[in-house]
Amino acid sequence: MDLQHMGRAARDASYVLAEAGTHTKNAALEAMAEALESHAEVILAANAKDLDAARENGIGEAMLDRLMLNPGRLTAIADDVRNVIRLPDPVGAELESRVLENGMRLSRRRVPLGVVGVIYEARPNVTIDIAALCLKTGNASILRGGRETFHTNQELVKVIRHALAACALPEACVQYIGEPGREWVSGLLRLDQYVDMIIPRGGPGLHQLCKEQATIPVIIGGFGISHTYVDDSADLTRAIEVIDNAKTHRPSACNALDTLLVHEAVAAALLPALSARMAGKGVQLVACEQALPLLQQGPAAVRAAEEGDFDTEWLSLTLGVKLVSDVNAALAHLRAFNASHSDAILTNSLASAERFVNGAPSAAVYVNASTRFTDGAQFGLGAEVAVSTQKLHARGPMGLEELTSYKWVGQADYLIRR
Amino acid sequence: MDLQHMGRAARDASYVLAEAGTHTKNAALEAMAEALESHAEVILAANAKDLDAARENGIGEAMLDRLMLNPGRLTAIADDVRNVIRLPDPVGAELESRVLENGMRLSRRRVPLGVVGVIYEARPNVTIDIAALCLKTGNASILRGGRETFHTNQELVKVIRHALAACALPEACVQYIGEPGREWVSGLLRLDQYVDMIIPRGGPGLHQLCKEQATIPVIIGGFGISHTYVDDSADLTRAIEVIDNAKTHRPSACNALDTLLVHEAVAAALLPALSARMAGKGVQLVACEQALPLLQQGPAAVRAAEEGDFDTEWLSLTLGVKLVSDVNAALAHLRAFNASHSDAILTNSLASAERFVNGAPSAAVYVNASTRFTDGAQFGLGAEVAVSTQKLHARGPMGLEELTSYKWVGQADYLIRR
Repeated sequence: MDLQHMGRAARDASYVLAEAGTHTKNAALEAMAEALESHAEVILAANAKDLDAARENGIGEAMLDRLMLNPGRLTAIADDVRNVIRLPDPVGAELESRVLENGMRLSRRRVPLGVVGVIYEARPNVTIDIAALCLKTGNASILRGGRETFHTNQELVKVIRHALAACALPEACVQYIGEPGREWVSGLLRLDQYVDMIIPRGGPGLHQLCKEQATIPVIIGGFGISHTYVDDSADLTRAIEVIDNAKTHRPSACNALDTLLVHEAVAAALLPALSARMAGKGVQLVACEQALPLLQQGPAAVRAAEEGDFDTEWLSLTLGVKLVSDVNAALAHLRAFNASHSDAILTNSLASAERFVNGAPSAAVYVNASTRFTDGAQFGLGAEVAVSTQKLHARGPMGLEELTSYKWVGQADYLIRR
Repeated sequence: MDLQHMGRAARDASYVLAEAGTHTKNAALEAMAEALESHAEVILAANAKDLDAARENGIGEAMLDRLMLNPGRLTAIADDVRNVIRLPDPVGAELESRVLENGMRLSRRRVPLGVVGVIYEARPNVTIDIAALCLKTGNASILRGGRETFHTNQELVKVIRHALAACALPEACVQYIGEPGREWVSGLLRLDQYVDMIIPRGGPGLHQLCKEQATIPVIIGGFGISHTYVDDSADLTRAIEVIDNAKTHRPSACNALDTLLVHEAVAAALLPALSARMAGKGVQLVACEQALPLLQQGPAAVRAAEEGDFDTEWLSLTLGVKLVSDVNAALAHLRAFNASHSDAILTNSLASAERFVNGAPSAAVYVNASTRFTDGAQFGLGAEVAVSTQKLHARGPMGLEELTSYKWVGQADYLIRR
């Protein structure tokens, strides 16, 4: 395997894909979905090999569950591919078109990015998911999955490539780096001659590696500390419902609530009741000095916050609680603790809502809603490629359009510049 | 000087700028323009120091002219700032807004990027230009100019900061790294905690350095090999006018023509006449094997192309000429030689035009027009921050909107996710 060769093949395939019609791309997606079903046996056999190896390596049950495929999950993955078929194809749309004073018709047309590199960890469904979304948007993809899913991914990519070939598309539209070793990741990150964008799907460590080593634009995101600020004007009974949802609906999600900021004036009224609700959900509380005595009046487990607690994305049933003097102090906390993902204010005050929306440094800001809404499906994007916390290119949930670029097209009658 | 400190100050200033109204930002721009005029004497004195140092270092006349300010040039720079005042402020616009099925009003609002780092070379007008465009779009900027303009830039930045302070904006909205040494550039490129985007304005070497070292998204661009393909159906008389314009209108520009591709079937008719026109403009020709004998029938200087000639951005009165068998061969050449900036087809065939527009890998593609049109002012963008040849975030000429990001805003009535 040679990365330069893979890059060149991907670039060449991207030229074919960029000009493939929606009909062709959808036919390849349907062929993929069918092949996933008809090749279920070999895919599941490969997956069993990965599971055996994982068990031998003493990998935990939660991780094993993420690796595991079964007929039901495979059908669900095939159905996801069919959902992508039903999404509108963003490629080719004219974003704007006007006639300049000199008579040139100038347009911006949506085009694929070209070649997308994706580096991800355990779940094998990402292989199919990303390949399908890239295919739909006319992008070639180079995939690098985790070692734990090696055999499964090999079979999945084989299936994808057969489907591509059956629809007269180049197999190099989807390529997979199977070799073990970090040097392959580093090599992919420096393949700037051929790769237009890198999407890391994993934890902060993977993102940091990509930032450090990539010479290609990287989409950073997928994690971040989420805050909810309860203003003094909030409806406290309903506020508890929203806090509960944000914290406990899916604690392992990146948009789950990490730190609750509470206006001092309503702390005494809110915190004991909150403790009661959190105790019922098994949530542990981590409180600032001022919040601690108030929370100790309630039944939930609570400890004093230590250095670093408000810098922590819990991804579990833990909730930081801190009192603040007003909405400006809440914003100061958000800024000091690098809020970048999803943050909410609960308030009945128009002024506080406006102040918070304008001042929060986050990709998604909510007024009187759970932070759990930051999600491509919830936002109606049809698909979610990633959730970006950077400000260039795309911010927040990325759908199909965010896998595209544009080109300027100028048409005239042998026009020269004066 | 401490980069961490500068970064933090820029980030804090960006929060103030992000919420500053257009009126405040325009008042600061007007104060900048006035201060440039009222401080002309000290600015020109500082510039004289730079010019003296440059002459001592034996810097050539062309470079000296780029460094040099005089009262007329200073007035032009102040006028450019006043032009920025007249541009519409992109910040705050709602890009989309809809009500989700669950009742949440979901909007995307245009917001500043935050902090923009700009690394540039000789011309001192870039200091004012970038500071003004960033200010208008609510971005703080950290500037790093060339050593040759050290004194001039120090004075310019002093003038800018006085103007900011006079309008009650933080001086840290515009900061300048004056210290000599590459390590300051490297440090800026790794200030990802505070800086949202890096714009290098310089040659390929600077862009490569930024790609290699930056942990912050970089806008790559500003150069690239420009091609024009003459199809067999082209109107050859008018084609010569367009080729002449693309090559000679401003040979040092990044959108000037580098390589002319000619359909074999019209080479004999076109090339001798082209040679005559080019001879009159002092253009030297560099020809592929097939084109050479045809060009030798004309009066222009011509030599056989060597390895690397079609990889060269000439930036001078030199033109590469190569024969190709059809539009597909022309596209294959564009792809092999990494066309990424501005490319044109001259044709009367609708099919060839469509094929070229769809297949060219360039940021700007023209049908029957000079490549010289790729420019923010020509495209009606009002300003030009840079010309991007990458596909993420922005492609081609970047105006004020490309200095912005967006945030998602969800408003509801204590809404939870089911």
